[in-house]
Amino acid sequence: MKNIVPESITKVIQHLMSFPGYGEKASKRFTLNLLKMPKGEAVDFIKEVAQMIEKVVPCKECGLFTEEEICPICKDEGRDRKTICVVEESFDGFIIEQTGKFKGLYHVLGGRLSPLEGITPKDLNIDKLLKRVEELAVEEVLIATNPTVEGEATANYIQNLLKNKNVSITRLAYGLPFGAVLENADEFTLSKAIEFKIKI
Amino acid sequence: MKNIVPESITKVIQHLMSFPGYGEKASKRFTLNLLKMPKGEAVDFIKEVAQMIEKVVPCKECGLFTEEEICPICKDEGRDRKTICVVEESFDGFIIEQTGKFKGLYHVLGGRLSPLEGITPKDLNIDKLLKRVEELAVEEVLIATNPTVEGEATANYIQNLLKNKNVSITRLAYGLPFGAVLENADEFTLSKAIEFKIKI
Repeated sequence: MKNIVPESITKVIQHLMSFPGYGEKASKRFTLNLLKMPKGEAVDFIKEVAQMIEKVVPCKECGLFTEEEICPICKDEGRDRKTICVVEESFDGFIIEQTGKFKGLYHVLGGRLSPLEGITPKDLNIDKLLKRVEELAVEEVLIATNPTVEGEATANYIQNLLKNKNVSITRLAYGLPFGAVLENADEFTLSKAIEFKIKI
Repeated sequence: MKNIVPESITKVIQHLMSFPGYGEKASKRFTLNLLKMPKGEAVDFIKEVAQMIEKVVPCKECGLFTEEEICPICKDEGRDRKTICVVEESFDGFIIEQTGKFKGLYHVLGGRLSPLEGITPKDLNIDKLLKRVEELAVEEVLIATNPTVEGEATANYIQNLLKNKNVSITRLAYGLPFGAVLENADEFTLSKAIEFKIKI
């Protein structure tokens, strides 16, 4: 028995397995996909990834991924600069923006508090949030962390930091997801939906 | 509302979503991982992937991924050239090789029959298998496709092609996986374990 896996494959798989959320299976699947596609396509893909890494930076103000120093939202004079929506990651901001329902600025934390993964407040972009709240004289902070245990803990932590400042703190509503079936809703979601019932 | 996702990110995500088994979630996770790591590490990773794509080819004989024209197994004079183990993908061959229990040659199909995904016999490396069986005067073909519906169909298809040739056809044994709990075994596995019971 000898190791017959080409070294260049082993390197890529081992590197992938060091990514958060990437196990052996996901790493092998990614590698296999690349190796099975026509070489030209794989090379194109790599170039696109290299270009993305080269171009994309976090916005100096809010942390949203952007190809400029300051993102289009922060630059847009028409945005409401008195409202900041706090999200865990850039992609959360992008998806909120797609709704067209939020007109303020964003603030990307770069993760959520997670004692298990050793992520503490100092690992998140929180100091900058407090600074922006002061400097912009922000009136409302909409905390849009994920409705998970860790997202909740992060939201509570930020809420505590802000409670003595003259700012209104809001959260995304809990409730039934659109198109859901009552029978399949978990108890927590259902009880929140009752607690925050809407008067029609 | 405007699209604020940087174009270079959209390109990578869309390309990833064209990979088999990659949905939006997996594509975003991969992209986010790359964008959140230190730029130097991301660049290193890209270089490793580029090197892998550059170096790795399917072995001209058996189809196993290798960095040479002919893989170390096919080159190895000590291997039993009368036995061929047929696998769906290279990684299946690598994992069988790790057991140290197989001393013959491999043959990579490059997938499995799947009417749903439009994968037909002509998409698999089957003609070459038949040619090798003839040329090497192979005595045993061990079919090691996955124990899934599609893997079974592929195995049956190959078995039919080989049945008039003077070659013994074998399959990996079905049975309880080592460390399994009887109570949790599915009916099919358990019935196969009874059918193929071992005399001790």
